[in-house]
Amino acid sequence: MGVPSTALFTDQYELTMLQAALKAGTAERHSVFEVFTRRLPEGRRYGVVAGTGRVLDAVENLHFDEDVLDFLRERNIVDEETLDRLAGYRFSGDIWGYPEGEVYFPGSPIMRVEGSFAECVLLETVILSILNHDSAIAAAASRMSSAAGGRPLIEMGARRTHELAAVAAARAAYIGGFATTSDLAAGYRYGIPTVGTSAHAFTLLHDSERDAFRAQVDSLGRGTTLLVDTYDVAEAVRTAVEVAGPELGAVRIDSGDLLLVAHRVRQQLDELGATDTRIIVTSDLDEYAIASLAAAPVDAYGVGTQLVTGSGHPTGSMVYKLVARTGSADPHAPLVPVAKKSSGGKTSMGGRKWAARRPDADGVAEAEVVGTGPVPAELAGHQLLVELVKGGEVVGREPLDAVRDRHTAARAGLPLSATQLSRGEPVIPTEYVRGPSGN
Amino acid sequence: MGVPSTALFTDQYELTMLQAALKAGTAERHSVFEVFTRRLPEGRRYGVVAGTGRVLDAVENLHFDEDVLDFLRERNIVDEETLDRLAGYRFSGDIWGYPEGEVYFPGSPIMRVEGSFAECVLLETVILSILNHDSAIAAAASRMSSAAGGRPLIEMGARRTHELAAVAAARAAYIGGFATTSDLAAGYRYGIPTVGTSAHAFTLLHDSERDAFRAQVDSLGRGTTLLVDTYDVAEAVRTAVEVAGPELGAVRIDSGDLLLVAHRVRQQLDELGATDTRIIVTSDLDEYAIASLAAAPVDAYGVGTQLVTGSGHPTGSMVYKLVARTGSADPHAPLVPVAKKSSGGKTSMGGRKWAARRPDADGVAEAEVVGTGPVPAELAGHQLLVELVKGGEVVGREPLDAVRDRHTAARAGLPLSATQLSRGEPVIPTEYVRGPSGN
Repeated sequence: MGVPSTALFTDQYELTMLQAALKAGTAERHSVFEVFTRRLPEGRRYGVVAGTGRVLDAVENLHFDEDVLDFLRERNIVDEETLDRLAGYRFSGDIWGYPEGEVYFPGSPIMRVEGSFAECVLLETVILSILNHDSAIAAAASRMSSAAGGRPLIEMGARRTHELAAVAAARAAYIGGFATTSDLAAGYRYGIPTVGTSAHAFTLLHDSERDAFRAQVDSLGRGTTLLVDTYDVAEAVRTAVEVAGPELGAVRIDSGDLLLVAHRVRQQLDELGATDTRIIVTSDLDEYAIASLAAAPVDAYGVGTQLVTGSGHPTGSMVYKLVARTGSADPHAPLVPVAKKSSGGKTSMGGRKWAARRPDADGVAEAEVVGTGPVPAELAGHQLLVELVKGGEVVGREPLDAVRDRHTAARAGLPLSATQLSRGEPVIPTEYVRGPSGN
Repeated sequence: MGVPSTALFTDQYELTMLQAALKAGTAERHSVFEVFTRRLPEGRRYGVVAGTGRVLDAVENLHFDEDVLDFLRERNIVDEETLDRLAGYRFSGDIWGYPEGEVYFPGSPIMRVEGSFAECVLLETVILSILNHDSAIAAAASRMSSAAGGRPLIEMGARRTHELAAVAAARAAYIGGFATTSDLAAGYRYGIPTVGTSAHAFTLLHDSERDAFRAQVDSLGRGTTLLVDTYDVAEAVRTAVEVAGPELGAVRIDSGDLLLVAHRVRQQLDELGATDTRIIVTSDLDEYAIASLAAAPVDAYGVGTQLVTGSGHPTGSMVYKLVARTGSADPHAPLVPVAKKSSGGKTSMGGRKWAARRPDADGVAEAEVVGTGPVPAELAGHQLLVELVKGGEVVGREPLDAVRDRHTAARAGLPLSATQLSRGEPVIPTEYVRGPSGN
């Protein structure tokens, strides 16, 4: 794609801060950075962690090749000492985080990166890019899959987002509960099941709708999905069953009043004996439209634009903040908690944090507890952070299906109102526990 | 990035439609596809064409390697005849389009792709992904650069979007009038000027704000930009000028009431003799916030989230539609205009189109005219489509600065109300002219 490694998915200030810290002798101070968000998107009741697996890939692949170093040298972005340091760069620290697919709330320490300032400071942008994008899509997907009940959702949004964002979006949608994707690159890269239907162009290419349906059935079999809204829907359904027989796999409706049309098409299919032919609806669906079709005879939903744009919230507001560091290069020196303190807002809690989700007597989550210092004994079994990278080695990689299952379970562990589509507050509050030393 | 070529930025149905058309003998019908949008995002007065250069790269790189073919075979996505066809795939047709940086309106034929159905059908998703994403960002950037007057805008949104979408976003922002980007990958890939400031983490790493400022100035020089809102802004500004002297390049303010704080900081800097020290503001800016700071002593704006998410409209609604095709494989057979006709909406005008922007007596645009058939003589000199690909060869590549200049000129040719930020209708209407045969 014209960018050789993840090294340059980096804001310039990360490299210039490294240069200044190297010269000042502070670059080796042991540092703890945390990823968190101060708020959920307005009205949302929970967030969904997605992108963790992609972060692990990015951290593993973050190295500065010769041509990248040449670029930095020619542009005079950093000095030779810094270039030397970058040439040998490999992340050798530790990363803990919420496991992918988990839910999160304001203040949740979604990821914690620990190592020298020099190695941690370079990861800010790439980690945030991935988590902010993927979590936004997964959150929308999760709401849509709730709204769909058990009906399968097809991710069809590639054409509405950047071509590689589309691949990540298909992955995030799968985590959030989608069944399949139309994006072949997502099938290739992540093994997500792919599906396809047909476009109006295919019907229009042929001299008649009947010719088009016959061509599709001849080649792809009776199990195919025929698109029935190019001309007249009722006539198309009749033709479709004539051509494919009652074994026709599915019809797709991509325009009009889907609720009304789905009922009519179902009745017509049944009358024609095509009682097993499924109805797939597409056309600017979001979670509300999906919910409104709950009583309609719809078998699957194809979702595009609203999924890949996060259904109104196309990005997360996660930040990557230094929360503690030593006062010297000695990694065993005591950690000093740090935090921005200006009066203009954006303040946060310093210190390295743990997190736990406290269940009530019935096992339903009742609070997200975030703290510094020792973990209270009653929460020890409910901690959320897991080890992802240990001494530079990725230890937290896992199959996408495990992540998808985790999300289903995590969402099911929340109070029922989590999956209400209406706007509301985070479904559980975040409580803060400050340790004696703040770290 | 784990995806070997642009071949798989494709929805599965494109390949299965190809298979069906090959079997039906319709795959070689000469076909004309057009990219257009039925509407602008709500309230927007014009759109900005961006991504054209990236489309040309994608078309040039669209070929099916062995491992991609293996994937398609193993997944049983298409049959062997289709795989053979894909193995030799190179786009050999023609592409015309609005030149990149131009403005567009509902119905504008932004791009026209012509060749056999077999070769054109595969380009739908990748072309739409690129144009829908990049044009959305460029449109937001254009509004922001209008709002900023002559003050420079810095693109800082990489952390709020997919890591590769960020690179394309920086490119689109540059087209829309941004001056620089913080994203190093965008500098590497597209030669966009890169800049950096500093983060709160750098201040917090050090034992005092003074130590941090000294470290930064020692290493990066007095021309650097110091971040002054980690603790107390007034104290930070005082310290900054003490450390760097009045030659300090700039200070950055990233939180608080920017209007108020900018005035105070300017006054303080002037009193300290740092009259040339610039003030850069960042913190969730959009075009409205930028406009509201017009009277503030601000020298540059850094914009992130709202830019890379299209300021409320993260994607375009462009579609890729078959508008005409021959009735046989003979490319010289007459073109038959085609269009979807169902009652459910989404209809469009068939036939291969031209487009012109008609000026009034003062040379200001007064209508977008889109038609089929012969171009009226009075519009011949105002046509918009240019040749981009000829017989499979890219002929329309151009430097990014030329694209950026074109956008400035195109916007300046619109009625003044184009750059009003308030919601409104498209600033000029689209008129349709139907040729005698509709093609």
